[in-house]
Parts: sequence; structure tokens; C-alpha cells
Amino acid sequence: MDALKPWAETVAHLVDVAMGRASADMVVRGGRWVNVHSGEILAGHDVAIAAGRFAAIGPDLSYAIGPSTEVIEADGRYLVPGLCDGHMHVESGMVTVTEFARAVIPHGTTSMFIDPHEIANVLGLTGVRLMHDEALTLPVNVFVEVPSCVPSAPGLENAGASIGPEDVAEAMTWPGIIGLGEMMNFPGVAAGDGKMLAEIASTMRAGKTVGGHYAAPDLGRPFFGYVAGGPADDHEGTRAEDAIARVRLGMRSMLRLGSAWYDVAAQVKAITELGLDSRNFILCTDDCHSGTLVNDGHMNRVVRHAIAQGLKPITAIQMATLNTATHFGLEREIGSITPGRRADMVITSDLVALPIDLVIARGRVLAADGKLTADIPPYDYPDTAKSTVKLGRTLTAADFEVPAPAGANAVTVRVIGVVENQAPTKALVRSLPVEAGNVGIDPAGDVCRIALVERHRATGQVVNAFVSGFGYDRPCAVASTVAHDSHHMLVVGTSTRDMELAVARLNEVGGGVVVYAEGEELALVELPIAGLMSAERAEIVAGKAAKLVAAMEACGCRLNNAYMQHSLLALVVIPELRISDVGLVDVTTFKKVSLFVEE
Amino acid sequence: MDALKPWAETVAHLVDVAMGRASADMVVRGGRWVNVHSGEILAGHDVAIAAGRFAAIGPDLSYAIGPSTEVIEADGRYLVPGLCDGHMHVESGMVTVTEFARAVIPHGTTSMFIDPHEIANVLGLTGVRLMHDEALTLPVNVFVEVPSCVPSAPGLENAGASIGPEDVAEAMTWPGIIGLGEMMNFPGVAAGDGKMLAEIASTMRAGKTVGGHYAAPDLGRPFFGYVAGGPADDHEGTRAEDAIARVRLGMRSMLRLGSAWYDVAAQVKAITELGLDSRNFILCTDDCHSGTLVNDGHMNRVVRHAIAQGLKPITAIQMATLNTATHFGLEREIGSITPGRRADMVITSDLVALPIDLVIARGRVLAADGKLTADIPPYDYPDTAKSTVKLGRTLTAADFEVPAPAGANAVTVRVIGVVENQAPTKALVRSLPVEAGNVGIDPAGDVCRIALVERHRATGQVVNAFVSGFGYDRPCAVASTVAHDSHHMLVVGTSTRDMELAVARLNEVGGGVVVYAEGEELALVELPIAGLMSAERAEIVAGKAAKLVAAMEACGCRLNNAYMQHSLLALVVIPELRISDVGLVDVTTFKKVSLFVEE
Repeated sequence: MDALKPWAETVAHLVDVAMGRASADMVVRGGRWVNVHSGEILAGHDVAIAAGRFAAIGPDLSYAIGPSTEVIEADGRYLVPGLCDGHMHVESGMVTVTEFARAVIPHGTTSMFIDPHEIANVLGLTGVRLMHDEALTLPVNVFVEVPSCVPSAPGLENAGASIGPEDVAEAMTWPGIIGLGEMMNFPGVAAGDGKMLAEIASTMRAGKTVGGHYAAPDLGRPFFGYVAGGPADDHEGTRAEDAIARVRLGMRSMLRLGSAWYDVAAQVKAITELGLDSRNFILCTDDCHSGTLVNDGHMNRVVRHAIAQGLKPITAIQMATLNTATHFGLEREIGSITPGRRADMVITSDLVALPIDLVIARGRVLAADGKLTADIPPYDYPDTAKSTVKLGRTLTAADFEVPAPAGANAVTVRVIGVVENQAPTKALVRSLPVEAGNVGIDPAGDVCRIALVERHRATGQVVNAFVSGFGYDRPCAVASTVAHDSHHMLVVGTSTRDMELAVARLNEVGGGVVVYAEGEELALVELPIAGLMSAERAEIVAGKAAKLVAAMEACGCRLNNAYMQHSLLALVVIPELRISDVGLVDVTTFKKVSLFVEE
Repeated sequence: MDALKPWAETVAHLVDVAMGRASADMVVRGGRWVNVHSGEILAGHDVAIAAGRFAAIGPDLSYAIGPSTEVIEADGRYLVPGLCDGHMHVESGMVTVTEFARAVIPHGTTSMFIDPHEIANVLGLTGVRLMHDEALTLPVNVFVEVPSCVPSAPGLENAGASIGPEDVAEAMTWPGIIGLGEMMNFPGVAAGDGKMLAEIASTMRAGKTVGGHYAAPDLGRPFFGYVAGGPADDHEGTRAEDAIARVRLGMRSMLRLGSAWYDVAAQVKAITELGLDSRNFILCTDDCHSGTLVNDGHMNRVVRHAIAQGLKPITAIQMATLNTATHFGLEREIGSITPGRRADMVITSDLVALPIDLVIARGRVLAADGKLTADIPPYDYPDTAKSTVKLGRTLTAADFEVPAPAGANAVTVRVIGVVENQAPTKALVRSLPVEAGNVGIDPAGDVCRIALVERHRATGQVVNAFVSGFGYDRPCAVASTVAHDSHHMLVVGTSTRDMELAVARLNEVGGGVVVYAEGEELALVELPIAGLMSAERAEIVAGKAAKLVAAMEACGCRLNNAYMQHSLLALVVIPELRISDVGLVDVTTFKKVSLFVEE
């Protein structure tokens, strides 16, 4: 396939095709043109495509059909611009950008705005560049945002790498960079943090878009401070008033429906009930597991859901096409079926059910009837990206023991309390027994061990603590190198022996998620790329992830989204109590606290 | 006044003001916030301004008021974003950019997108740079488009200069350039003209906006070809179907209300009757005479008019603020009252009548109650810009005589027929007497002389022909160095002696418009800058222009907009018959034709 040329380089040919002096590469005949600019559905239109771009749209473009023109009969079906995901993290799917694209193209997604925040915490700007370069090889549009907050909580954790204003400025010169990834340090922005503001300024100077992330309910002064700091969008709103406040202050409100995010229904009422101008609302997924991609869909699922909330189909489609393109300054490049734009288009027989009959991107048919038809070869990551689990030594069961204070029979410790269906944890205090000089667990009280194993700098460091809420009721351990946002190795278990085995196994495969019970491996998802992503197909990863859930259940865990809860226990930006490589962190005061409670 | 800093350079201070850690420069209290992003009118809002930008908008920003903060009480009045003119030519006002700004600021205009097409035809890129540099000195926003078609009709005329793709590429690097000026050569674009497409490509590569101008009723294939060529907007539509076709194909439709353009009413029906999404419609003036600016208003006049056609006030205001900003990629910089944007705002007591009570731009009060209050010094153009009338010799009455073929008693000649209220002329054929070997005029038949005097290269060349329709009924002459688009000197008269005097007078004052009758000067508008613009105030120029109209009437002319008709007689891109420095031009065949008709 020839690389897509800029409109500027192919303008003469597009004009020739539009005028009938040259043949189109493809003509789609007799469709209902879903016109996101005018807000109309226009029956009886042909679309001519050349050099990967739309050349003309009109009632009869038979004049553009030559001997080698591919002709597709729309037969009255709808012609919808290729769907855009306005904000997402590929790593959440545990697959490469390539495999993510292979999974979502059949769902009609042809543009993604990705923030490779996870790989950045492991491999820094080098990791961002790897995914950026991979993105550029794909037949769909993957625009990359430079992660802004690496590490997420400076001083409270040490990630595998860090990104600063100079890195951001450098990345802004790369061809596939569209802006700055979600600025999660909203207290920092409001407080005037120099590093955060410098990253924002670098992005503004490059004329690119500053992504936002304001995850607090206060829409007063702290929000005003954040908005004055420059973020141009935000997908962290959950209530209608959140969406409204963002739009009123000139941000674009991104409404997300991810695997575990359900933020469209409440916020879309700003349009359906309160009548706000819809142009500043955008749909996105933020995070999708591979299982969601394989079983439920991607942006087609979001658009369908938005329509089910009472949006007109054309409005919901605008929110996943033109609005997104406009936001990122790409309105002349993607987001509509109009001359000069990349020829990204979905053919569907129904705008509400939105079956994805055919997917065309850059003028090529990539998928038909829900199946990928194009050959998109796997992308190989370099060995440096596949050797990120660095423990420095062989860990044993003893590494997960916590020595009790001399002479104690029982101890009082801080325990991380998992709360079902919520991201925040509870800071619990529990009494635990002492056994052979070490602190024991409390299976009856659902308190088991948690260990953070430093894996970026081979320090051999292990931080031990206790967690409650998983319900593990047999000797077992679950380990993961996906542990937001620093992505050390996080092990939860009732058995130090199983913890040892789990850690060794992940060390062996270069990262992933594994479940051991009574010395036996119950499930394994290998994630060798940065310890975050598989190189396998999304359906294979989804299958393995399903076995992982089953294995955790077999160990007694009945928690919804138990693996996600596991992987978030080191996220030292969300209250109340978390674990990091510096110890236990009280995320209400943003201070390290001791394991043992002084009495 | 400190120069306005980019948001990136002042972000920390804006955050400090929004958070209450620093005082605002200005706080406007208790206004109705006209929110163009959400489409709402929100009562009871304060606006805090710092460093020339909006810092915060909220229900109570008293915390941002410090000892040196200027406090303005809105008292429930509406706070409207400063109005933007999406496409206009300053030269039409016959004043400098500075004087144009002084005239329109009291009407609430704070942003203008200007195409200095006229000066470019006289002084080339140097002239564009002069107006560009002047624009940068002003306390309001004047964004400059690089004229694309100089000369307008290559081969059919020689202007004072020409602009090509290399010039366009160079200008794209200047700080105040926003895009390419209206691409008037629409047949050229559709035909794949290399020069036109290269100018467009240069603009696209710079990431800037390509202005359009498609002045034909055919919305089929020639229009498709034009759109595929890249123009992103168009203000030449006159019918609802014109506006609709443009928006559907992904252009922005600019609806104009100028001194002599009345294109809003018909086209706005696309929104008010047919329900198209209004986001891709923009209001503009294109051309305003100084009299319109002084007596009727500017963008406030256009917005009022649009509302009178049935648009909701908020929609009409979006079309003169946010929509314009979005179109030019300036949505984070101008067009709304939201944090970080330039603090450009109008306070008005009524959204329909739209009285302009107060005008704030970049955080400074510039006008109150319709009067300019800011000191905006005149801008001095260099002498090179004021010595553009180069005749090469002294012309006499004999220069305007047309020798008849030897022995003829009468001749049959082509005559340019002026049609009232229309831009196109008629190609007439008339019989004229021969007097002393020269062709005489026919006062009874309303046929008088027209002469194009070459004034750019001092060739001393004069092209003589005849024109009908002005109604001059006494010995007189009207001369003008404004003669679109090549801006030679154009003289119409019944008396060769008065023509001589008129030419001499314009040569003496460096250009302008003058009326002579029976040897006496009846009116003069001096336009020494490029022969197009005065350095005087708009009200003075308007006064002189009014005298000009009266003088033409005193010579027997009863035509509407007679002076405009005069100045368009050399516009060799509009049918049917025109005059240029190469001779008479048939603008239906785009060929030079002879004065005498062969019989």
C-alpha cells in the first residue's frame, strides 16, 4: 500500500477525479450520506475516492468510474464517517496498537487518540516513541498524546521512568503527536506547579491540544484554576453538571463508555434535557479490556448507547466524528465524508442498531460484516521493550513475611480495604496475629498479604502490607506487572509460597498476570511488552483474561472486576490507602504512613 | 501598553488570578454571560481579566478584586464575546487598517480577517507586509490573509505587481498571517491550474486556512472540482442552495452583509427554514464603505440583521464569534468569554437591538457608548507606499481622443454598458459620429468616454473606449485610482479637457477619486496610500465620499452606487465587457476584442 499523502500533495489528482478527468480508485454508489457538517441525512449519493481521500460526493458520480475503479453498491444504506475514539489507552486492552486496531476496525473505528501513559511509566519517552512509531504503520489513524504525568505521584512513588517538560517539547516535533495526554495532576495545575505548567506551555507553543483530567466534584475555584491552566478537554466528568461546567468554560466534554466506565447516560442529559449545544461534546472509551472489544464493540457500542439515551443518531455520530476532529484541529483531515478528507467510512443499514456492514479507511476496505478482511501484519517490539521485569535477585517465600515487633503476640496494622465497584479504597485498621515472629494473615476477616515488588531498577526491593476485600479462601496468590501507574509487580495472596511462585513465573515470561493456588498455576496472561501488553490477538488475550477471572473466582474471589481492583492498588493518586515502592501511602494527606499503627 | 503575551507565557498568572492568589486587572460584575460554547445565556456572572486574557468566569469573583483592579458593573447587562468579521477588505473603506479599526471598535468589532487584495495589486507582497505590520500594532485582532489572485486575470491585465506560490510560502511564516485570501480563480482551480494549486498547497502545508470564492451558480461538477482543490470557506453564495451546498461539502458558508452585499437573508434560511446545523455558518461584511462604518455600523449591523431574519440571538452571535474562531483554528484564542482567551468583550443591554455600550479588547476598555475612548495613534506609511501613481508623462486632452479609421463619417464600436445594481456589464454595440477625424461621443444616447491610464510602470499608456449608463449630461470627468483589481487610473467623462484635469489632479495628490465639471473640481477624495487609502479618519473620508456622490449627481448621474460601478469597470473577471491595460476584454470568452466592430 502506498503511504497516504497529505491533501496538499495530491490536490491536483483529487480535482481531476472530481472533474471527471481521472478515474476514482473507488466509487460507492447510492448511499444515504450522513452529513455531519449540515446535520442532514441525504439519500441517493455517490462517493468517489482517490489516493486514500474523498474526491467528490454527489448524486451521480458515474463519470468517475473507470476500468480499474472498485465499485461498491451501498443500496440505500447509510454512509457514516469512520468513528473516532477521542481519548483512550491502548494498554488497557493488554494488546499492541496493531492488535487493538485489528480488534476495533471491524467495529467501525478508524481514528483513535491514544495516551500511552502506561508504557511511559515503564519505558519513558522511549516507550511512547515505540507506540508512536507502531501507530504510524497502521492503515487507520492513531494519533498519540504525550503522557503528562509520569510518574503520577512524584515523591510518593518511583516509576520506571519519568517525563518532563523537555521530553514533552521534544515529542511535540514527532509526526504522530497530537497533543498532551490527560493532565491528571489537577491539584498541581491549580497550585501553579511549574513542571505541569511547563508541559502545558510546551504543548500550547506547538499549537497542539492539552488533554484534561479533572477528577474532583468541586466546580468552583479549584476548577477555575485548572481551566485557566489550559486543558482543553476532560473525560473525568460523571454528572450532568460536570459536563455543563466544562463546556461553559470552553473545554470539550468527553463522555466515556469504557469497559468499566459508564459516564455517558448521566452527562448526555446536558444535551437531551437541558438543550446545550452538542458541538462541544465528544464520545470516547478511555479504557477497554480486550473482552469488551471482542464481545461488545468499541465506538459503535458507545454511539449506540448514546442514541439509546435519547440523542438523535446524527448528533451521536457527530460526537464520534466531526466534533472529535474539530477538537484536535483535524477537521480538514478526518471526521466527515467530504472532499479532501481521509476516506474513512462505515456502511450500515441502520443508524440506531448500527450494524457495521463495511469499513473503509483511507480508501481501502478493511473489514466486512464484522470481520477484518485486510492483512495487517503484527508489529514486533524490540527486545528492550520485552525485558522490563528486573527483579535483581530470586525472591523466596520469606521475602513476603513481615517481621513483628519483638515480643508482640498480636499487632495493629493499616490494611488497604477494597470497596466493590469503586476506585477509592478504605484505610482500615486491623489486628493481626503474630506467628513465629512474623505477622500472620486473618482469612476469616478477609485480610491477606499484598506485596509490591520493585521491577524497574532491579533493586530487589519488596514492600509488604495487608489488604482486605478479595475473599481469597484458599492458599493462593495473584501477581501482576500491570499495577497503575508505576507498574511495579503487585502480588496479593494468602500463601507466601504461591506468591514466590507467581513472582517467579512473571519474571520468567517477562511480565503479565498469573494466578497460583496451592503450588499450581491456574491462569496466565503473558504481557511481555513492558509487562503491559501481549503481542497476541485480542481474542486470544480476551480468552486468557477470562480464564484469569475464573481462576480468581476459584480462589474464592467474588468481587466485580477483581483484577482491575488488584491492578489499581498501587495508584497513589486515588484515596484512601495505597501501596507504592516507598511504602504505604495515605492518599488523603499524600503522605507515607507506617504499616504498624502506634497505639 | 504591554504587548499581549501568548496564553502559554502567562498561564501561571492566569491560574493565580483564577485561584485568588493574585488580583485581576479588571473584574466585570453581575453580567449575563452569553455563552457561545453551550448556547446559553447565564445571568449573574462575574468575569475576571488579567494580562489581557480572561482568567475566570463565575458567579462571584470578588476574591479576584485587589486594590488596583478596575471594577466594571454590568448591572445585569449581556456580556457578549467581541465580534469577528470573518472576511473583509480594509481597502473598501478607503482608510488604513488603523482608521478602519478606530471606526469599527465602537461597533463592537474586535477581530477582523482581512485580505489586502487591493494593495497587493499595486505593491505586491510589500504592500501586504505593510498592512500586516500595521495590523500587528493595533489593540484589536487583525489577522491577514495572503491575497491569492494577483493579478486577478493573468494575460488579460497587468497589475502593479504579482503574487505567486513562493510569495505565499514566504508570507505563511509571518506572525499575523492566518491563511490564503479568497481563491477567486475558481475556473483555474477546477481546471487544475498549477499556480493556483501550488498556492493552496503552500497554505495547507503551513496548516493555515484556504479562503474560497466560488462565484458561479453551477453547484455540480465545477463546484466539486473547486472544493476538492481545498478552499475551506466561501462568501460568494447568494441563494440558500449555495450556502447548503458549501456546508454539505465541508466548507464554511460565510454570509455577508456589506455596504452593497445583501446575502444573509436568503442564505440564512438554510438554518431558519431547513434546520441545518448552524455551526458552519459565519457572518462577514466583505466590503464596507467608510460611510457604512460611520453611519450604520459594522458586525453589529450584520448580527442585528441576521437576528431580524429569524435567527436566535445566541445563534447569530455564535456566527460572528465562536464559529469564526473555530474556522481559523483560533478557538482557544478568541471568540468566547472563557478562560485563557483574549479578553475581547462587548457589554450590551439588549441582544436584539444590540446597542454597544462598552467594548473591551485584550482587557482594555476601548470604546464606550459608541465612542472610541482609547488612544490609537495614526499609522504612517512609508513614502514608497505613497508614490504609486506613475504616469511617465503629462497627459493632455488629446490623449483621450480615439482616431477614426481614415475617411469614416461614423463608426460602430463596442461600448461597455453599465447595468444598475448589478456587477456584470453588457457588451453593447453603438454607432458613434466622427468629428475632425476622431470618434465623438453620443450624449443623447448616454455614451461617453472611458480611459484606462496605466499608472504602475510609468509607461504613459492610455487605453480609450466608450461606456454607457452613467447619464453624464454636461462636460465633466470622473477619475479614480481605485479600479478593481489592477487599480490603474480609470477616467470616465464627456469632456477630454476635464479628463486631462482629473488625471493631473490625481497625479498631483498621489491617487484618489476626483470629479471635474467644466474645468472646475467638484469633489476630491485623496487616497495617497497605494492610490487606494486615505490616512485620514473614516468620518472625514466618509464626508468626502458623500461629496463625491453629490458631485457625480451634479454631472447628471442618477445611478445607484455610481462610484462603485465606475471602479469595477476594469474588473476583467466579471462579464461581459471590461477595459484593461491590454485593451477591451470580452469576459465571456476571456479574450481581448477590438474597439471597432468589423462590419
